[in-house]
Amino acid sequence: MSATQHTGRSALRPATARRARGARPAIAVTVGEPAGIGPELAIRAAWARRAEVNCVLLGDAAFLAMTASYIDPAIKLSALSLQAVRHGGLPHFGPERVTVIDVPLAAHVVPGKLDKENGRSVLATLDAAIEGVGAGWFEAVVTAPLQKSTINDAGVPFSGHTEYFAERTGTPQVVMMLAGQPAAPSGAPTPPPLRVALATTHLPLKDVAAALSRDGLARVLDIIDHDLRGKFGIAAPRILVCGLNPHAGEGGYLGREEIDIIAPAIAAAQARGIDARGPYPADTLFQPKYLQDADCVLAMYHDQGLPVLKYATFGHGVNITLGLPLIRTSVDHGTALDLAAQGLGLADGGSMDAALDTAVAMANASLHLNQEQT
Amino acid sequence: MSATQHTGRSALRPATARRARGARPAIAVTVGEPAGIGPELAIRAAWARRAEVNCVLLGDAAFLAMTASYIDPAIKLSALSLQAVRHGGLPHFGPERVTVIDVPLAAHVVPGKLDKENGRSVLATLDAAIEGVGAGWFEAVVTAPLQKSTINDAGVPFSGHTEYFAERTGTPQVVMMLAGQPAAPSGAPTPPPLRVALATTHLPLKDVAAALSRDGLARVLDIIDHDLRGKFGIAAPRILVCGLNPHAGEGGYLGREEIDIIAPAIAAAQARGIDARGPYPADTLFQPKYLQDADCVLAMYHDQGLPVLKYATFGHGVNITLGLPLIRTSVDHGTALDLAAQGLGLADGGSMDAALDTAVAMANASLHLNQEQT
Ligand SMILES: [Zn+2]
Ligand SMILES: [Zn+2]
Repeated sequence: MSATQHTGRSALRPATARRARGARPAIAVTVGEPAGIGPELAIRAAWARRAEVNCVLLGDAAFLAMTASYIDPAIKLSALSLQAVRHGGLPHFGPERVTVIDVPLAAHVVPGKLDKENGRSVLATLDAAIEGVGAGWFEAVVTAPLQKSTINDAGVPFSGHTEYFAERTGTPQVVMMLAGQPAAPSGAPTPPPLRVALATTHLPLKDVAAALSRDGLARVLDIIDHDLRGKFGIAAPRILVCGLNPHAGEGGYLGREEIDIIAPAIAAAQARGIDARGPYPADTLFQPKYLQDADCVLAMYHDQGLPVLKYATFGHGVNITLGLPLIRTSVDHGTALDLAAQGLGLADGGSMDAALDTAVAMANASLHLNQEQT
Repeated sequence: MSATQHTGRSALRPATARRARGARPAIAVTVGEPAGIGPELAIRAAWARRAEVNCVLLGDAAFLAMTASYIDPAIKLSALSLQAVRHGGLPHFGPERVTVIDVPLAAHVVPGKLDKENGRSVLATLDAAIEGVGAGWFEAVVTAPLQKSTINDAGVPFSGHTEYFAERTGTPQVVMMLAGQPAAPSGAPTPPPLRVALATTHLPLKDVAAALSRDGLARVLDIIDHDLRGKFGIAAPRILVCGLNPHAGEGGYLGREEIDIIAPAIAAAQARGIDARGPYPADTLFQPKYLQDADCVLAMYHDQGLPVLKYATFGHGVNITLGLPLIRTSVDHGTALDLAAQGLGLADGGSMDAALDTAVAMANASLHLNQEQT
């Protein structure tokens, strides 16, 4: 597939060009599995940022109101039905309350306890988010964690958030990126954000090598370059590419994929005007001095790229789906059912906060670009 | 192989029990490929530490004297022949000079330019280091980088430093560990040292899964536990073990090696009294909050473990060979011939400094243990 892969996306033109002057960005937050930690983290993050961000929670209004009252009785939510928003658009309430679009649950929620009766409602929040971006209600979507099994048990084949967004937006290929802000070492300046994209994601390690191809890597590089420009506002993104093998294969001595697949894919991307470089040994590349020069690192597989990201960001990484015709970020943790069962106030909201802040930054970058173009 | 693997090592009883009260620890430093950055880094590190450490440089005395004079005319070296030391033992000069044991080169050195005439001399420095540990001259060995090709071109089959030490000391299996001190993030306390051992080292990625076995991992865990106790002085070492696959296989959904190989090897190690835990997902485990509890992380392969280590230690990691009947540390970089060709003062000595400091710390820990036992 060539650089023309992004055609057909105009049906989902993002809402960013339509933000009223001085208005807060409107960001949809799907609250995820109701029995997990998602609803609490979503409410806390939305409430904390209400002065700057118009977070719109997508979930069961009565359940969220009850949860909010337990977190802090001062939290004010305003619920709307999906029908009302479809009819009249998203009203822009002031920063004294958080908007909820009601996507009703079927069954009472017991924290920590999955209930397949609620599977379709979780899915309906994703549909509402996608619809809302297309309709111009939202500039970006943040997703709290869901439980795949609940949705499958509800009778809907479902392999994951990311796959669902891809399918529903007619996107042939997406790229998983994790990003975060590394802490500055004592006395050192703050390092740039670290962004790690993956050429392969959730595969057994023994299948990784066979899953790489020149064309596949070429598409991945196209998507990364396209989205770093269009969603991050990076004018000339530089992508540093890892090898597959130790020492990037050491000239073929430790594997030939660098020579046969990765280097040709990089050369082809360069010929299309993409500033991709490599392949580099992963343990060399992931040193602060080299990361200074990278807008994104493309790792060949999950455990080559993500340990450094999670180490550097203290578990506050943000999962960003590249290639979609909308901005979607997500936490990088699960539903933590055991924690939810123990009560409120226990979960670490760092990744949810970062996911929301990243979505806002991306919405602002897209808005800026759209305004430049029009 | 069982825990009895360490028999037969008494021939190389380390010298640690023999340090005179108040004496500086004696550490051999092989200066490595003469045309690379090793000689300069070895001289600088030895000179900087002369008050606390009796570094003994193993290399060509005339070449090292000339190099030292270019670095700083104040540096004083005292050269001895290997014969003299064999005859009279290692004299303990005071801290005003650095001792050199002369291992002559065959050809004039041009920085940056390899010369196979000097290959056998480089190898002879390793032999002298091993001999000296056995004879009680040295408590530990630090190796500067060498160039494998030079030794092979000299007509000696040679696959690497580590393999050579193993063969010459009759060691059936060694384990590669990299260690370093992560920087403290601003305002946070200094984290504990990070130690990462590898279950497999320099293999093409596609061959990693097939290279794992229960027995092999059991031996690796034995060696790590044995050396953390005996060379690092850690009384009850805790080893956290990574899975092979993303999410440690997610219960078999992303690969079965965790179930079939890694978990049984951990259980067997636990039954032998080793505090090994896991397998854990690598991107979870390599977070500062979990690393707090680990004396060592066992990664399944090179690029799963080393990127975090190198990121966290800013490239100042130390390579430690576990399983040998002696303490051996090494820099984690190469000969940097191009840098050497440009002149002195350009190479980063951080890894050499760390390798020497680690060797001293390990020598002190071993000494302490030996004194407790006697
Ligand atoms: Zn290596
Ligand atoms: Zn994952």
